[in-house]
Amino acid sequence: MQITRRATFSASHYYWNPDWSPEQNARVFGKCANRAGHGHNYTLEVTVCGVVDPVTGFIVDLKWLRDLIEREVIDVYDHRHLNLEVPEFAQTIPTTENIAIAIWNRLAAAIAAGSSARLTSVRVYETPEIFAEYDGELA
Amino acid sequence: MQITRRATFSASHYYWNPDWSPEQNARVFGKCANRAGHGHNYTLEVTVCGVVDPVTGFIVDLKWLRDLIEREVIDVYDHRHLNLEVPEFAQTIPTTENIAIAIWNRLAAAIAAGSSARLTSVRVYETPEIFAEYDGELA
Amino acid sequence: MQITRRATFSASHYYWNPDWSPEQNARVFGKCANRAGHGHNYTLEVTVCGVVDPVTGFIVDLKWLRDLIEREVIDVYDHRHLNLEVPEFAQTIPTTENIAIAIWNRLAAAIAAGSSARLTSVRVYETPEIFAEYDGELA
Amino acid sequence: MQITRRATFSASHYYWNPDWSPEQNARVFGKCANRAGHGHNYTLEVTVCGVVDPVTGFIVDLKWLRDLIEREVIDVYDHRHLNLEVPEFAQTIPTTENIAIAIWNRLAAAIAAGSSARLTSVRVYETPEIFAEYDGELA
Amino acid sequence: MQITRRATFSASHYYWNPDWSPEQNARVFGKCANRAGHGHNYTLEVTVCGVVDPVTGFIVDLKWLRDLIEREVIDVYDHRHLNLEVPEFAQTIPTTENIAIAIWNRLAAAIAAGSSARLTSVRVYETPEIFAEYDGELA
Amino acid sequence: MQITRRATFSASHYYWNPDWSPEQNARVFGKCANRAGHGHNYTLEVTVCGVVDPVTGFIVDLKWLRDLIEREVIDVYDHRHLNLEVPEFAQTIPTTENIAIAIWNRLAAAIAAGSSARLTSVRVYETPEIFAEYDGELA
Repeated sequence: MQITRRATFSASHYYWNPDWSPEQNARVFGKCANRAGHGHNYTLEVTVCGVVDPVTGFIVDLKWLRDLIEREVIDVYDHRHLNLEVPEFAQTIPTTENIAIAIWNRLAAAIAAGSSARLTSVRVYETPEIFAEYDGELA
Repeated sequence: MQITRRATFSASHYYWNPDWSPEQNARVFGKCANRAGHGHNYTLEVTVCGVVDPVTGFIVDLKWLRDLIEREVIDVYDHRHLNLEVPEFAQTIPTTENIAIAIWNRLAAAIAAGSSARLTSVRVYETPEIFAEYDGELA
Repeated sequence: MQITRRATFSASHYYWNPDWSPEQNARVFGKCANRAGHGHNYTLEVTVCGVVDPVTGFIVDLKWLRDLIEREVIDVYDHRHLNLEVPEFAQTIPTTENIAIAIWNRLAAAIAAGSSARLTSVRVYETPEIFAEYDGELA
Repeated sequence: MQITRRATFSASHYYWNPDWSPEQNARVFGKCANRAGHGHNYTLEVTVCGVVDPVTGFIVDLKWLRDLIEREVIDVYDHRHLNLEVPEFAQTIPTTENIAIAIWNRLAAAIAAGSSARLTSVRVYETPEIFAEYDGELA
Repeated sequence: MQITRRATFSASHYYWNPDWSPEQNARVFGKCANRAGHGHNYTLEVTVCGVVDPVTGFIVDLKWLRDLIEREVIDVYDHRHLNLEVPEFAQTIPTTENIAIAIWNRLAAAIAAGSSARLTSVRVYETPEIFAEYDGELA
Repeated sequence: MQITRRATFSASHYYWNPDWSPEQNARVFGKCANRAGHGHNYTLEVTVCGVVDPVTGFIVDLKWLRDLIEREVIDVYDHRHLNLEVPEFAQTIPTTENIAIAIWNRLAAAIAAGSSARLTSVRVYETPEIFAEYDGELA
């Protein structure tokens, strides 16, 4: 049994591997290699599983989950440049895949510690056409 | 192999545990504890799995599935107050989680009996931001 | 030149004319006449027009407009039963048309007083399939 | 870890089993049996899984995946009559289920051969209300 | 004061001017000139204006409007090939513009005759990316 | 009679008035004043009006309009930092209002020169919650 909460944030990023020449960055990353940056309205879906508490009818208190997502993710990512202002992307390229992993890492322990639910997946939409989903297993 | 049919209904509900004081209901359920009720346009996704029949190309006849959902769910829930008018919520708080379980219970046996498909999940969106998914296993 | 801000609220309502018999209410209003109520996720679009301020690039400060909508509309309508808890619907049936007019009446003077913009339309979606739009002229 | 790319195509089709009488086709397939055909804006979601390459941050190069989908699916299906112009539907009824299987068959080997990712699911929306999902296992 | 009702239909069409050579049709209409046809999920928005009846709170009875749209448009267009099966497109190319005009012509007099409202616009979406809007004036 | 074409682009921006102190920029523009920039998936709707050509059924050739939007807007704005890389925003704050005006200025003359249609409005969505619309008149 699962429940999902959606949230959104708007952020800038670029794709750049500092070990490569500008030409190789442009060849692999195309328009995303532009160092001035570009941005997206990201949509985030946080899914947890657990037992429905017979007293509340809840797997998790969604207000608590919303506040947790707000504090741990939105306050850090929203209206920010991911490469320049978010610590986990100082060395890691903020692709959709890596953003999903980073959000998992920000939320999984806190959800386990603060509720009887368990994080099961983080889905991140970069645009309506592209989304990554991470379930805690890298492969 | 799976196929999904979406449907919608508009209903009222509130969250209230009769074993609690009004203060405790307000503290846990916030605005949802308002006894006058509030409502949503719910979206329902019913997913079944099975083998594609080589004669029809169907896992299940979607007109039959639509009529079943209409009769078993929409006719009972749409334009209703879930707490006051739908029997399964007389004692059970109509959270998104419990609505998903209740719809599963209304559909699973009928799908198995009337087709060669099997219900695999019921997803209920309370708003575009919140949805629960039930696959027949409570934990 | 116009700018629009969207907001959402979830509320219950029913359609009932107290001058009519229950039969006539049922005949005219169908399922909407159910006195237990039903509900919707309403979407509201508030559109204002004005001159773009060359200093800010704004027609109106959207944070100010968002807070105004929040205070004047969302705080009053969200998670409420419109017929029972919102004063303007004590005597007026909360149809989509009347909700659009009521929201106009809550916002038009405040926008004119608090900004250099002017309200030009209020659009209310009851569902994605039905919406009303009011521009301040009743016919 | 998964990443999904969405694409769209517009196509005509009808449902018709040549072993049946016109009456039986009409009884089983309803309006879809109309031999003049009708059409849809199909939405396709192609999901692959794999390891995130630490050098690029990618499971798969999404530009490469987009071009593959374009060449293998969109160029063949878009603005076409599926029954009359797409070879895999000469003998197979182009139901949503069969379209999902056919797209899987067009993409799975090419993704495995051209990248380090693996196709995990193909989801096809015929309308926003109906979608099929295939994961490579027929039952 | 306006109210809008949305409806959908799925249909096939092609673009072909019989006075032109196949080459000229292909040059002007591109993939749309394919005589096998292709199709879309069309979305239709019918907007009427009028006075809000103080007795009902309605500009128009939306159930009546829905049934009118169903009978005059959906029953004729849905699951049809517009060029081959809908009379107004026997001589007229079913572009988005011409479909909007044709639907206006099917509805305007009936709305004026059967209600106190007046049709103000017909919007037709061929895809989410393309829509035409007609207000009864050709230029 | 109008027809609309939608397009999308992803870009970065910030709000900053160089005549103000950092404190005043922060007070007026809030999170948008962050000089590292943030970004959005913008959606653009370009609406033209004209007479339906009886030979083609078109107000305007939508492939031509798409290519014009691509060349004049998307190629210049997409995957760019609007403040730093797009000339019209070197001195002008790229608010939603100013982006709509700038796109109008890029398209209006070209549409009038290259077709028998006329640009009637440019609508720009910064997010699904905020959009500006410009019709060529500043007030």
